[in-house]
Amino acid sequence: MKIALVGIGKIAVDEHVPAISDSPDWELAATVSREGAVDGVEAFTDLGAMLEARPDIRVVSLCLPPVPRFAYAMQAIAAGRHVMLEKPPGATLAECHALERAARAAGLTLYTTWHSRAAEMVGAAKAWLEDKTLTSLTVTWKEDVRRWHPGQSWLWEPGGLGVFDPGINALSIVTEILAEDLHVTQAVLEVPENCQTPIAARVAFCHPGGARAEAVFDWRQQGDQIWEIVAVTESGSLRLADGGARLEIDGTVKGAAAALAGEYPRLYKRMADLVRQGQCDVDLRPMTLVADIFTLGRRERVAPFVESATDAA
Amino acid sequence: MKIALVGIGKIAVDEHVPAISDSPDWELAATVSREGAVDGVEAFTDLGAMLEARPDIRVVSLCLPPVPRFAYAMQAIAAGRHVMLEKPPGATLAECHALERAARAAGLTLYTTWHSRAAEMVGAAKAWLEDKTLTSLTVTWKEDVRRWHPGQSWLWEPGGLGVFDPGINALSIVTEILAEDLHVTQAVLEVPENCQTPIAARVAFCHPGGARAEAVFDWRQQGDQIWEIVAVTESGSLRLADGGARLEIDGTVKGAAAALAGEYPRLYKRMADLVRQGQCDVDLRPMTLVADIFTLGRRERVAPFVESATDAA
Repeated sequence: MKIALVGIGKIAVDEHVPAISDSPDWELAATVSREGAVDGVEAFTDLGAMLEARPDIRVVSLCLPPVPRFAYAMQAIAAGRHVMLEKPPGATLAECHALERAARAAGLTLYTTWHSRAAEMVGAAKAWLEDKTLTSLTVTWKEDVRRWHPGQSWLWEPGGLGVFDPGINALSIVTEILAEDLHVTQAVLEVPENCQTPIAARVAFCHPGGARAEAVFDWRQQGDQIWEIVAVTESGSLRLADGGARLEIDGTVKGAAAALAGEYPRLYKRMADLVRQGQCDVDLRPMTLVADIFTLGRRERVAPFVESATDAA
Repeated sequence: MKIALVGIGKIAVDEHVPAISDSPDWELAATVSREGAVDGVEAFTDLGAMLEARPDIRVVSLCLPPVPRFAYAMQAIAAGRHVMLEKPPGATLAECHALERAARAAGLTLYTTWHSRAAEMVGAAKAWLEDKTLTSLTVTWKEDVRRWHPGQSWLWEPGGLGVFDPGINALSIVTEILAEDLHVTQAVLEVPENCQTPIAARVAFCHPGGARAEAVFDWRQQGDQIWEIVAVTESGSLRLADGGARLEIDGTVKGAAAALAGEYPRLYKRMADLVRQGQCDVDLRPMTLVADIFTLGRRERVAPFVESATDAA
C-alpha cells in the first residue's frame, strides 16, 4: 500500500522512513514537508497539493509536532484518506475526539500510535502482571533533553508538553500493562523561568486496588539515561527498563532488545492491519493523564533552560 | 426519596438545600460535613458513618470542592448509592471515567450536573440555533471574585481551576447549545504571582463549520457583572445573558428570569428522573475543554491576588 509521510523532521528520518522502507506492507510514495525530503520520493510542500495530485495514495502518516497536527489530519480525513498519528495524537483532547468522529463517520482508519507500547517486552510485562496483585508502581523517566531533542524549541512552547513529550511514552506503557486505570491525585511541575512547559515533574496516582503509584520525569539527567517502570506485586517484582525493551522478573533478565528496536515497524504493521480490517484504534488514556497533570499540577519555577553554550552567550 | 448532602458550604446552603426543600421528589435526610449542618436534619461528620447508619438513604449529592470529591463519590458508589456531583465533577478526567465505570458496573445512577445548562433560557437558545449557520460565537464571563467567592481559597490551589470555576459554566452552556463541538486552538492564562490558577483567560476555539469562536474570562470585573454568550448566525443573532437566564434574538427579549433561578430545582428533578429510570448522565465535554485550556494555554504572570485589605496588611 502506498503511504505519504507528512513532517520530515528528526523522528521521521530516524524511525518512520526506515520502518516504511523495511516493511512488506508499505511503499513510501510521497512526502509533505516545508524543508525535509527523502531521496527518490516525490516531495510536496503542501498537503492539499499532494492529496489532489496523488489519489493513489490512500494512507497518510503524520509526524509533525502536535499543535499543527489537527488541521492536517482533518484535511486528510476530509479527502478520504486513512490517517496514522505520531504521539501525542494532538494538542488537545477535544480535537482528538473530533478526528475520531470524523474518521468513523467516513469509514476511515484513524490510528493514534504510542510507539513505546510496541517496545519489545511490553507485551510480556502485561502478560506477567495479568494475574498478580500490584502493591507498588514506580515510573522513572530521566533523560538529557539536549541529547535527544536538539533544537526542538516547540517542546517548550504551549502544547509542546515539555518533559511529558517523552513522559507520555511511560504513561502509554503504564496504561497498556496495568489491568486497571490509574488517575492523578497530585503533581508538581518544574517549569523553567523562560519556558512554558515543565523540564521535570513528580506525579502521584490513585490505583483502584490501593497500590502506591508514582512517577518522576526529568529532562536534566546526566550520565545513565533511565526509562524504567518497576512494579512490585504480592508474588514478585517486575522491572521494565530501556523504555520497554528490557524485562527483568525478580532480578532475572527475561528478554532484552536495543531501546526503540522494532517499535516503528510494529506500528506500521498494525496500521496495515487496521486499514485492511477497516478499523480505528484511538486510545486517549495517556493523553488524558497528561492533561490531568497539567490541570491539577502545582507549578514551581526553576532555573531558565539554555540549550547550548552558544545560546547562553 | 431520601437524599444526603455532602459538603455544607456556600453553594449547598445557597442552592442545594432550598432546591431539595422545595422539591416534591426529595427529602433531605442527612448531611455530611466537618463544619456545616442544616437545622432539623441529622448531621454526620463522616461519610462512612452516614452510609452505614442510614441504609434508607439511597442517593448522595456531593457539593464539596472537586479535589476531595472522587474519594467520597467512590465510597458512596461502593456502598451502592446513586451519586449526584456538583460541577466540575472531579479534579481530573481520568477519575471521572473511573467513577462512570464503577457506577455503570454497579447499575447505579451517576449524574455530573452542570447547573448553568439548567438556566431558564438555555433550552430556547439551543432550539433557536438548531437550524442556523453560525458565523461567530463570543463568550464573555466577567465577575468579581471577591463578591462571589469570598474566602474560597481552594479555588487558587491546583485543581481549583481559578476563573474556570465560573468559566466552566459558560463552557457547559456552549457545549449544550451548539450542534457541533468546539476545540481549543489557543489560550492565554493570566495567573497571579501568588496563585496556582488563573484569574483571567482568553481562549480561541476551532468551530467545525469555520465560525470564529472565542471566549474571555475575568475575575477582576468591577461594576456590571457579565455572563453572556453572543452567537451571530447567517439569519440573525442571539444573546444569552445573565448566565443563561435571559435570551435576546436580534435585540428583542424572548425571555428573562433572575440569574440562577430554577437551575438547582431542575437538576434535582433530573436526578429524580435518572434514578427512577436507572440511568447515568455523564458529560465531560466542559471539563475536557478546561483540561485542554490548561494543557495548551500560555501562562502569563500578573499581579498577586489579595482578597481583602486585611490580607494585604
